[in-house]
Amino acid sequence: MPIAQEILERQTTADTDVLDLTPDLSDFVSKSGVAEGLLVIFVPGSTAGITTIESESGAIADFKRAVERLAPRDEHYEHNLRWGDGNGYSHIRAALLGPSLTVPVSEGQLTLGTWQQIVLCDFDNRPRRRRVLLRLLS
Amino acid sequence: MPIAQEILERQTTADTDVLDLTPDLSDFVSKSGVAEGLLVIFVPGSTAGITTIESESGAIADFKRAVERLAPRDEHYEHNLRWGDGNGYSHIRAALLGPSLTVPVSEGQLTLGTWQQIVLCDFDNRPRRRRVLLRLLS
Amino acid sequence: MPIAQEILERQTTADTDVLDLTPDLSDFVSKSGVAEGLLVIFVPGSTAGITTIESESGAIADFKRAVERLAPRDEHYEHNLRWGDGNGYSHIRAALLGPSLTVPVSEGQLTLGTWQQIVLCDFDNRPRRRRVLLRLLS
Repeated sequence: MPIAQEILERQTTADTDVLDLTPDLSDFVSKSGVAEGLLVIFVPGSTAGITTIESESGAIADFKRAVERLAPRDEHYEHNLRWGDGNGYSHIRAALLGPSLTVPVSEGQLTLGTWQQIVLCDFDNRPRRRRVLLRLLS
Repeated sequence: MPIAQEILERQTTADTDVLDLTPDLSDFVSKSGVAEGLLVIFVPGSTAGITTIESESGAIADFKRAVERLAPRDEHYEHNLRWGDGNGYSHIRAALLGPSLTVPVSEGQLTLGTWQQIVLCDFDNRPRRRRVLLRLLS
Repeated sequence: MPIAQEILERQTTADTDVLDLTPDLSDFVSKSGVAEGLLVIFVPGSTAGITTIESESGAIADFKRAVERLAPRDEHYEHNLRWGDGNGYSHIRAALLGPSLTVPVSEGQLTLGTWQQIVLCDFDNRPRRRRVLLRLLS
């Protein structure tokens, strides 16, 4: 099985970042020449995740509020007591969202809905240089 | 790598729908003749998701109540202000659940637990015709 | 496509267990001799899930508190009324977390972040003998 692969890089901030990867992912699929296959997206790290959402500013703001409810930034975290880096909330958000996603490719295109984009969510409390790993099976 | 593929279609309602896909998925695996492999399930769209649950009416009712807590239908959503379609809650639920799932196939069968079914969750606030994409790797 | 496969087994308790599978998963990848590929991890059963987290006791304690907020153990569950096994909360937690994860393998190693471990989460209210299915694509 030939697996095409690539690494995307993104610079993030100290806030919760939700970054649309779809244009770069579509480019990667196009350049591969693969018509029918599967794209796997994975982010290494315990304070980030991958999902899909309609990447418009309203839905992104709503998503950030929802993850704040899931794991409030200023709540008590045991992790913070032990490590002092203050990102206990980031670990919980990332564990609940998950770091991987698999999307079919059909006729050379990602099979996303019209309003569905693939996003990297960086929950950490400091800027990070993130690597996102892509594997395309065909 | 031969990848068998198929598209399931489901009509949904304006309520949160949790639809058991397992019989159709099992049929697809059986008909493929694949003994050992992986089934990838993906739903296009930003207001639906895929997961597994015990598909009995009690657990389904509990699940609907849990997603209502995660992203209440009548809360304020920026998305609703901008788009006026009133389904801000649907986008959040879908982003948190995720649109894809990968299940091993062993001895020609999905390797699910006895009480574990694969479900399509449609969170949108209007009836939709959903397509669910299947890819079987072997 | 050759797919290497293995089954891990774990004994769990009646509490929420979060068990680090990473050493065994790394061993499996090493022994396979696969340099570039994808590892799929799947747990059969409707009361368990798979994710990644920094597997240190503080973050694990925080995670358990977060899933208790998501689906409190002592809340009302329809599932409990119908089946009397008292694990309605377990089903909801498992459905929200999901049973599968896909992780790239690069240069013979899992491409995890430094502080990122792959964990089995058993949410059931009684001890279980869990099987975790591994498939390695290359």
